[in-house]
Amino acid sequence: MGIEIKTKGELFIISAPSGSGKSTLIKMLLEEVNNLEYSISYTTREPRAGEVNGKDYFFVSEKEFEEMIKDNEFIEYARVFDKFYYGTAKNQVYSRLEKGIDVIMDIDVQGAYQIMQKGNVDFTSIFIIPPSIEELKRRLVERGRDSVEEIEKRLITARDEIKYLRHFDFVVVNDILEDALKSLKSIVVSERHRVLRIENIYEIYKHFTEE
Amino acid sequence: MGIEIKTKGELFIISAPSGSGKSTLIKMLLEEVNNLEYSISYTTREPRAGEVNGKDYFFVSEKEFEEMIKDNEFIEYARVFDKFYYGTAKNQVYSRLEKGIDVIMDIDVQGAYQIMQKGNVDFTSIFIIPPSIEELKRRLVERGRDSVEEIEKRLITARDEIKYLRHFDFVVVNDILEDALKSLKSIVVSERHRVLRIENIYEIYKHFTEE
Repeated sequence: MGIEIKTKGELFIISAPSGSGKSTLIKMLLEEVNNLEYSISYTTREPRAGEVNGKDYFFVSEKEFEEMIKDNEFIEYARVFDKFYYGTAKNQVYSRLEKGIDVIMDIDVQGAYQIMQKGNVDFTSIFIIPPSIEELKRRLVERGRDSVEEIEKRLITARDEIKYLRHFDFVVVNDILEDALKSLKSIVVSERHRVLRIENIYEIYKHFTEE
Repeated sequence: MGIEIKTKGELFIISAPSGSGKSTLIKMLLEEVNNLEYSISYTTREPRAGEVNGKDYFFVSEKEFEEMIKDNEFIEYARVFDKFYYGTAKNQVYSRLEKGIDVIMDIDVQGAYQIMQKGNVDFTSIFIIPPSIEELKRRLVERGRDSVEEIEKRLITARDEIKYLRHFDFVVVNDILEDALKSLKSIVVSERHRVLRIENIYEIYKHFTEE
């Protein structure tokens, strides 16, 4: 009924120290918000139990990944812990934004910061943090995926990553999962009402001003 | 539990052509969102049936209003339809923001634009628009408060006011009331997570980086 406001799709970059509950939150967010899709990352690491190629990641060889780098197919990529490549391909993002679909990019803090520095992509960035370093440790231990050494390494990385908080647009503390989800939803929904993102503003003016 | 993020209160300026449902939406918003308060405006117009002094408005004489102008007590004020003064007093806003309480200012488009131009106040602005000019007319007729001439005058004003849309941060189309309310809530909640508004960022860094 009446005029319809058309907005461009927005790219949301979501980062967090590992163990902050980011993956769970993103999964829930995608289920609850329409018109929001996930950008599947490319990686050279091995799939973990239960991970599906083309759903959780595109699992590719180091050679394939480096080929894509050469062909300028990535918006961003990074080598994590000097070991595996992770990257976001342009084919996962731009065509959706043009259709007015919002896209979520789940990347590590290093990758997020790289995109911010480059400044060639428009996005809204969200940093999810655990309520405390003690709680982060407890969660990493509880999920039982990593060795003691691996957990110590993740905690050191987390301490370092928190310093990047000030570069992000929004922060969400994941203390109670449901509250954190509500906050994330609000941020996505709110951005859809941003005047700067309206594509048919002239049409709206016309409707209201012409007799 | 753990760290607590403290943010400054935010001033939300909400404007709309009359008949857009702004007052109803603001009333509902205040009921549903914690830590959000309404800035009561001063005006020289007569109270309408049911309006309470100190709740809906502070009803003052023209002499009192002009005294307050002289004493620099207003953040903004305007004379609407060359007839009545409307203004927002500093005492309604600043002390709340300092306490971390968000404040809603309900002002006409002229007043909102005046504040934007001055640039001496931080705020987030929201423009509520009806789904169409036909629907706006229908609502003005239906509420039965104004004469035919008055309605025509309001429609002309509305057509003029819509042109200010591009100066606002957010737009909410009030087609279905419940949807418009959800959008407004999202905008307010989202802004509470803005990193730039964090007051204790150093404390957060400290918690996470100190062993």
